[in-house]
Amino acid sequence: MRHFVEELEQLKTKLLEMSAIVESSIQRSISAVTQKDRTAAEEVFRTEVRINSIEIEIDEFAINLLALHQPMAADLRLIVAALKINTDLERMGDLAVSIAERATSLMEGPIITPMIDIPHIAGLVQSMVRKSLDAFVHRDADLARSVLASDDAVDSLRTACYHELTSFMEKDPHNIQQALNLMVVIRNLERIADHSTNVAEDVLFLVKGIDVRHHAETRPSAVG
Amino acid sequence: MRHFVEELEQLKTKLLEMSAIVESSIQRSISAVTQKDRTAAEEVFRTEVRINSIEIEIDEFAINLLALHQPMAADLRLIVAALKINTDLERMGDLAVSIAERATSLMEGPIITPMIDIPHIAGLVQSMVRKSLDAFVHRDADLARSVLASDDAVDSLRTACYHELTSFMEKDPHNIQQALNLMVVIRNLERIADHSTNVAEDVLFLVKGIDVRHHAETRPSAVG
Repeated sequence: MRHFVEELEQLKTKLLEMSAIVESSIQRSISAVTQKDRTAAEEVFRTEVRINSIEIEIDEFAINLLALHQPMAADLRLIVAALKINTDLERMGDLAVSIAERATSLMEGPIITPMIDIPHIAGLVQSMVRKSLDAFVHRDADLARSVLASDDAVDSLRTACYHELTSFMEKDPHNIQQALNLMVVIRNLERIADHSTNVAEDVLFLVKGIDVRHHAETRPSAVG
Repeated sequence: MRHFVEELEQLKTKLLEMSAIVESSIQRSISAVTQKDRTAAEEVFRTEVRINSIEIEIDEFAINLLALHQPMAADLRLIVAALKINTDLERMGDLAVSIAERATSLMEGPIITPMIDIPHIAGLVQSMVRKSLDAFVHRDADLARSVLASDDAVDSLRTACYHELTSFMEKDPHNIQQALNLMVVIRNLERIADHSTNVAEDVLFLVKGIDVRHHAETRPSAVG
């Protein structure tokens, strides 16, 4: 049993390591956009392979824990939550790749569109990712709930950016391509925020034993 | 043991029921776009609540199977796959809601943009959803692989549509708002296709015991 407790700790550590790598990919993808940093973009592309193999490793580790220890109740839910969080982290990594791809397109032309609130949204989203994983590791319901609250702020910022970028396109058709790329960057940041929200909901389920997913208060809006 | 076998069948049946509801939401969201069918859009909004509660029900059912029967090997992997597929189906439902929301915006103006390939992409995506679930229920690796192949076709169609809609915007700024809405519809269809790909990869993992996720051959591209 001692052994099993240690292995559960190991599972959490592995998820934290995965999260650290995903977070730095997100950070680099943003630098690629805002600072036209091509090296950062390339690093994101390289890291994707690593994130993918860690995802598989964590899945296997969790499935083996289920098979070998046949855990009950709280431990079982912890492992199921870890499997779900693992999937969300890997998809955040994919979204960082997508942001880095747009950054590469944006590097080709001069920056004519103001970067508006991208660094602001990015900062908010990155703190959501961090907090949702910390909430998981420390079983901290309050921290998880603060992630759900931030999701609304991200949605408002995104809407404001969209309006700004749309009128920028309408003003001059030459801006369209660049504005579209920036819209995709913002949308991908918002999707990363949605994944953090999923993680936070899994944490609340784990800690409280209640399912907060889909309650009106917490529902992340589905956005394209 | 007899009992457990029946419960595993029940789990599959529940996922198929979930899938049928999600598929009809996708179908209705497309009708809302292409036929300006407001009733269809409203039905999608109503169905979301039901999809959310079925997701929770299936998760609970699967977790109870894990707790009560402590399955090994193949059965364990089946249940873990079911948990993952359940999440993917629920997110497809969210994307149908997002398409229906865009449909509602599109209803407000006259259709000036050609609907291009939307019905074509939608048909392809819907067949991917159907096939990926059939592949799960019948443990059919060939069918799962055909879903992975279709994902490339969806990506090509999406790229063609984006080019068409971008030049449509550039031609006349009055088209921008409508073209942006159609882009979001197409992107959401593509994301539904990505979720089907995830399901197909889980099926291959289940059937072959190998992890095809992230192999070059099958990797769905991360798109914003």
